[in-house]
Amino acid sequence: MDSNAKAFSHVYQKVCPLGYTFGSYITRSIATTKNFTMIWDDINNIEKYTKQMDDVHTVYHLAASADISKSFHEPTMDLENNVMGTSAVLELMRKQDIKNLIFASSSSVYGETLTTPTPESAENIKPISLYGASKLANEAFINSYCHLYGMKAWMFRFANVVGRYMHRGVIFDFNTKLHKNPKQLLILGDGKQEKSFFDVDDCIEGMVYISSLHKIKESDVFNLGNKNTITVKQLADVVCDELHVKPKYIYSGGDRGWPGDTPYTILSIEKAFDIGWEPQYNCEESIRRTVRYLNNGKET
Amino acid sequence: MDSNAKAFSHVYQKVCPLGYTFGSYITRSIATTKNFTMIWDDINNIEKYTKQMDDVHTVYHLAASADISKSFHEPTMDLENNVMGTSAVLELMRKQDIKNLIFASSSSVYGETLTTPTPESAENIKPISLYGASKLANEAFINSYCHLYGMKAWMFRFANVVGRYMHRGVIFDFNTKLHKNPKQLLILGDGKQEKSFFDVDDCIEGMVYISSLHKIKESDVFNLGNKNTITVKQLADVVCDELHVKPKYIYSGGDRGWPGDTPYTILSIEKAFDIGWEPQYNCEESIRRTVRYLNNGKET
Repeated sequence: MDSNAKAFSHVYQKVCPLGYTFGSYITRSIATTKNFTMIWDDINNIEKYTKQMDDVHTVYHLAASADISKSFHEPTMDLENNVMGTSAVLELMRKQDIKNLIFASSSSVYGETLTTPTPESAENIKPISLYGASKLANEAFINSYCHLYGMKAWMFRFANVVGRYMHRGVIFDFNTKLHKNPKQLLILGDGKQEKSFFDVDDCIEGMVYISSLHKIKESDVFNLGNKNTITVKQLADVVCDELHVKPKYIYSGGDRGWPGDTPYTILSIEKAFDIGWEPQYNCEESIRRTVRYLNNGKET
Repeated sequence: MDSNAKAFSHVYQKVCPLGYTFGSYITRSIATTKNFTMIWDDINNIEKYTKQMDDVHTVYHLAASADISKSFHEPTMDLENNVMGTSAVLELMRKQDIKNLIFASSSSVYGETLTTPTPESAENIKPISLYGASKLANEAFINSYCHLYGMKAWMFRFANVVGRYMHRGVIFDFNTKLHKNPKQLLILGDGKQEKSFFDVDDCIEGMVYISSLHKIKESDVFNLGNKNTITVKQLADVVCDELHVKPKYIYSGGDRGWPGDTPYTILSIEKAFDIGWEPQYNCEESIRRTVRYLNNGKET
């Protein structure tokens, strides 16, 4: 990132009908380490902040609702937060003549693609969750804005980002459950779902490194994740090991944790790797760092 | 199509700020030939028609704003009409437990793909118009709904559909201009843009034939168009020939007609062809039929 760049990040989505907020731990991690202005508001209200955007030339847009199991019961949630929210960001950028966008997309755009490890150019991309659909919709609109209004966008399809400030997701969930009852752990699905987790520090580094070094025409998309995967059962083992507990595992059954869950996800990260980025922490290390942060307030 | 199927089609988008309505000539063509209920309303109001949907099991959703040059100046138009409108259709289908959707997508989802003729499985699909972005967003959400709520969707990426009831587009535009001034014709771009046009009757036949014959799992997408292309200059020649005029051509210049225009579009229609569909009219015949309809009220 240009050292003169002032990045503007919207971090919290609106308070949802069920009464809780979505937070971006990625943004919170950036905010603690860089010179960011932190504004907590619904992203659909971004127009209120037109003045703050006056001398901005790069927007990091990381705000989204990302609860796949919740949106199954509230199917318009991702449209309202993610698609309309991103449209609000793009409109403000267009009106303010801000040319550069760093965007957090997701590996969930790929759905159940048959090409694994999955490259950015995978054929027949078909999201199976509303979250994945909203992110693919975002990418499509961002690309059009770049083409039509002379903007540039670096879009990143993340594997499962874990680490500092996590407040939901499978590691958070296991950790909470094991504190309540260290003798038994309910695992959603059959425990064989296989995914790639990577650390929030690697995620931030990847976005900043690639967007600063890699010239693009209009927009481009990059996978960010780890080269290895871990099953949900193995993940449970790691969390238990960190907590020094040995519970009995109970499986809810089925090959996926919830509707819209993708049982097997492994991204090809060759494109980012060729530019010079690679993750510092592997899957297991990323998970251990997360558990340590959740319990000690730091990763070590 | 199952002969018992009652198809419900929403045909007109809301009256837009500039004061005109968008109409689907495809739907109007269906409505004159099949046993359809015609309701003219904003698709975002579809919930008002819940009762009419009681015994429906297949929805033909063809409603959209499709004016690429207009949306360049009103960038949220396609989000509001097409993305939110389609969400309203999907929500009503989900609540009413309607399982089958026939959806009009567009070749504009492909943007400037390098693979030509372009198959459905083309890599790196990046729309360059907001209309194309909205259609790709639609496909993504439709696929997710099919996966999550047990629906099935046949989605069709159309080349340029022409014919009965056209009230905009290049043929309509040339015809109108030549009636005003048969001695001179302004052609947007350099006239070398090359596209594929196909007749609305072939379009309807394709949707009905493929969705009735071809079993799918969740959702699938099919290109519909012609095997051949025609340049905009050649198209002007055909319109002039039909009108028996020989104007001087004036070119506005540049390699595309308007921002978001794709200079070269040719779809691979092999997938539909393999199922047994093929268009009855080639590019030139489709254009001639349109001009005849515009001037005589019938295609011959």
